[in-house]
Amino acid sequence: MASMKPRTLSGFMELLPGPQQQMERIMEILRTTYARYGFTPLDTPAIESAEVLLAKGGGETEKQIYRFTKGDSDLALRFDLTVPLAKYVALHYGELSFPFRRYQIGKVYRGERAQRGRFREFYQADIDIIGDGKLDIVNEAEIPSVIYAIFTALGLKRFQIRVNNRKVLNGFYESLGLTEQSADIMRTADKLEKIGAENVRKILVEDLSIPADKADEILSFMAITGTNEAVLTALDAYRGRSEKLDQGLDELKTVVGYLADFGVPQENFAVDLTIARGLDYYTGTVYETTLLDHPEIGSVCSGGRYDNLAEYYIDKQLPGVGISIGLTRLFYVLGEQHMLSDTLNTAPADALILPMTADLSPAIRLATAFREQGIRTQLYLEQKKFKAKMSYADKLAIPYAVFLGEDEIAQGLCSVKDLRTGVQETLSAEAAAEKIRAGIDALNQGKVIVE
Amino acid sequence: MASMKPRTLSGFMELLPGPQQQMERIMEILRTTYARYGFTPLDTPAIESAEVLLAKGGGETEKQIYRFTKGDSDLALRFDLTVPLAKYVALHYGELSFPFRRYQIGKVYRGERAQRGRFREFYQADIDIIGDGKLDIVNEAEIPSVIYAIFTALGLKRFQIRVNNRKVLNGFYESLGLTEQSADIMRTADKLEKIGAENVRKILVEDLSIPADKADEILSFMAITGTNEAVLTALDAYRGRSEKLDQGLDELKTVVGYLADFGVPQENFAVDLTIARGLDYYTGTVYETTLLDHPEIGSVCSGGRYDNLAEYYIDKQLPGVGISIGLTRLFYVLGEQHMLSDTLNTAPADALILPMTADLSPAIRLATAFREQGIRTQLYLEQKKFKAKMSYADKLAIPYAVFLGEDEIAQGLCSVKDLRTGVQETLSAEAAAEKIRAGIDALNQGKVIVE
Repeated sequence: MASMKPRTLSGFMELLPGPQQQMERIMEILRTTYARYGFTPLDTPAIESAEVLLAKGGGETEKQIYRFTKGDSDLALRFDLTVPLAKYVALHYGELSFPFRRYQIGKVYRGERAQRGRFREFYQADIDIIGDGKLDIVNEAEIPSVIYAIFTALGLKRFQIRVNNRKVLNGFYESLGLTEQSADIMRTADKLEKIGAENVRKILVEDLSIPADKADEILSFMAITGTNEAVLTALDAYRGRSEKLDQGLDELKTVVGYLADFGVPQENFAVDLTIARGLDYYTGTVYETTLLDHPEIGSVCSGGRYDNLAEYYIDKQLPGVGISIGLTRLFYVLGEQHMLSDTLNTAPADALILPMTADLSPAIRLATAFREQGIRTQLYLEQKKFKAKMSYADKLAIPYAVFLGEDEIAQGLCSVKDLRTGVQETLSAEAAAEKIRAGIDALNQGKVIVE
Repeated sequence: MASMKPRTLSGFMELLPGPQQQMERIMEILRTTYARYGFTPLDTPAIESAEVLLAKGGGETEKQIYRFTKGDSDLALRFDLTVPLAKYVALHYGELSFPFRRYQIGKVYRGERAQRGRFREFYQADIDIIGDGKLDIVNEAEIPSVIYAIFTALGLKRFQIRVNNRKVLNGFYESLGLTEQSADIMRTADKLEKIGAENVRKILVEDLSIPADKADEILSFMAITGTNEAVLTALDAYRGRSEKLDQGLDELKTVVGYLADFGVPQENFAVDLTIARGLDYYTGTVYETTLLDHPEIGSVCSGGRYDNLAEYYIDKQLPGVGISIGLTRLFYVLGEQHMLSDTLNTAPADALILPMTADLSPAIRLATAFREQGIRTQLYLEQKKFKAKMSYADKLAIPYAVFLGEDEIAQGLCSVKDLRTGVQETLSAEAAAEKIRAGIDALNQGKVIVE
């Protein structure tokens, strides 16, 4: 008698086989694309010493962390892939070559309050380029190219990579004498799209006690929009106010200038002065990526430039630039928005071989031949009625059924049925393999995401 | 100032980029091969409710488990992939089609005492075929084919899949009236290779109080070796003693009988009566896989047939057959034995483009073109001396360096240097891509494991 009701913890994604195949396809695209840009895969432990993981200390992170002891050890599950990267680079500094480009796709853990679409265990898919002492600005120009390649390979067209530069923002607030309040101001400006300019102005003046003329300056700065060229030209008018702003503007122009060479179309890219991405960590270019038809989802790929990856672990200046995709949440919202292709081949096998004779040898030999040719093949071995076998193939959406009866065996042939069209042909094993492979190749042309 | 010495917990594998590439290659081969046999990928949470995970209860497992609370929840990290599979199949029973064939490659956690080559976090790579009510014996014959395909694809030749049937063993001990002692006897018989027949006999008679004549029978049963045919013929002499033994023998003959059809050569397979694989769980065919030149490693892929996967979670009879590869340990011992190929391409990129002009546009466009053609390409963007750039390519063992100076740009060409041969050619971008791709394809022919 069963004694325990099976359950999966709330906030933990566990997919059925079909959706899991879609997820695997997405991961494969991420791995391949990251690798194509010269990022090397890393895999660090999910458990770290708590004191190492929390070296930076504090805040929200520490409340959400899964922390526990085992024996004498104070342990914790990683809550992102950045801290483990910092540890890795510091620990293996002497064995790595810089710039060090790595990707990592792995699960991270945050004990957030459970709610729909929030996960406690989720995949992040990160890339970072780490320099030793210095890192050239052109690395920051390369990142949008990776983002563009990823989302295009996934099947998206209507997305926009939004870019800003923290030096432009910080330089601007510095020029207004508002450096100390800049964090509060940016947090307020971030709400511009949501609450409108009037309300932002009100918060700036009333809550943050910013003089009215400066609030107006901030609002007109934030109102700079238009084509990349228009935004950069408008920003040129701010030149000379602050060295930092000038430097940030030069960087922004470099990033925009190399876009076309990096293969990123203008329509998938925008300079957006409202983007700030957090408060302290990022120091140069920052990135967000939004789906144009689903702004409510927020950014699906974000990151930026930072000056010092591993200052808590090593006395070396290690500047870097990176982006992160919250893969589990992305997969969830794509599903919610009905954007995951339902024509994609998610069957466990390309072909199901149905032996129709007591001696299974010919069917097994056919399966072995198919497998050697790379066709994902299942042999149906259970003693069931024909109808039950076909219903199995249907339920799993296996594209091809292959029948092997006495007639076929006597003639050295097999019957291949395309289960989508219902068309059945009797063919040699070689011709059958060829037919199935061509059909599967066509099926696999489809993209994971549909708009 | 760095305030925390970075470290990785002992018992947790963290690889440098080169070895990580080898590990990724192995995982890719496992995924591809498992998929080719019609197994669908699954991914279950690393954390489960402790009471669900420990439903079966007890023993060594419970002592080693990572268990902790978060809020009111009593949680634990999975210690294998079988219990989560049982939970998954019970929980999603109504949504799955049977036979259900899944593979899962994932990390599991056991807080074992730290020692060389023992890991607390390690990958298991499992396949299982789960039937609903029944599962045909031919599924048990298919498993050696998967094992053979995996290890052959990895590059191994001198390995042996050893197979036994628990019904043969249990039937034999039943016929001697030793059913209750069979577990102790099998544990002793397991040491045959290590301590020799004389010592096994001594333990049987003196420690287990087995009558001398029965001890002799056990030893002569265990002494049945030779070709598969010889072993099966010798076992035929035991027919009629026990129904269970007869049934096990029939099953063993079916498994051996279909070997050739499943593409498994005789020399990679042996019926071995000393194999038992644990005590209760397995009920039919059992498997071990040994490297012939490294018997000290023990089995690198094991498993077997069981009668009831999920009895703690659901009142359904769910028989299955599965195998597991302890991937992290396998990787570790292959490294220790110097069996991981050092000619394999483990560089983060296939080509490193070195711009030699201030304007980076031509180099960036070349990188974009290479990447679109699937060549893993890194642009070297830092301001360094030429020698430093070449030393970077050398250290990372990047196969090709591509130079783009003013002359090349003026002629619409680029210079490609094969860094293994030192040969440099000036070519068009298309010819360069073709050359690099051909070279990389040749490099990637190599197997991960060398003997």
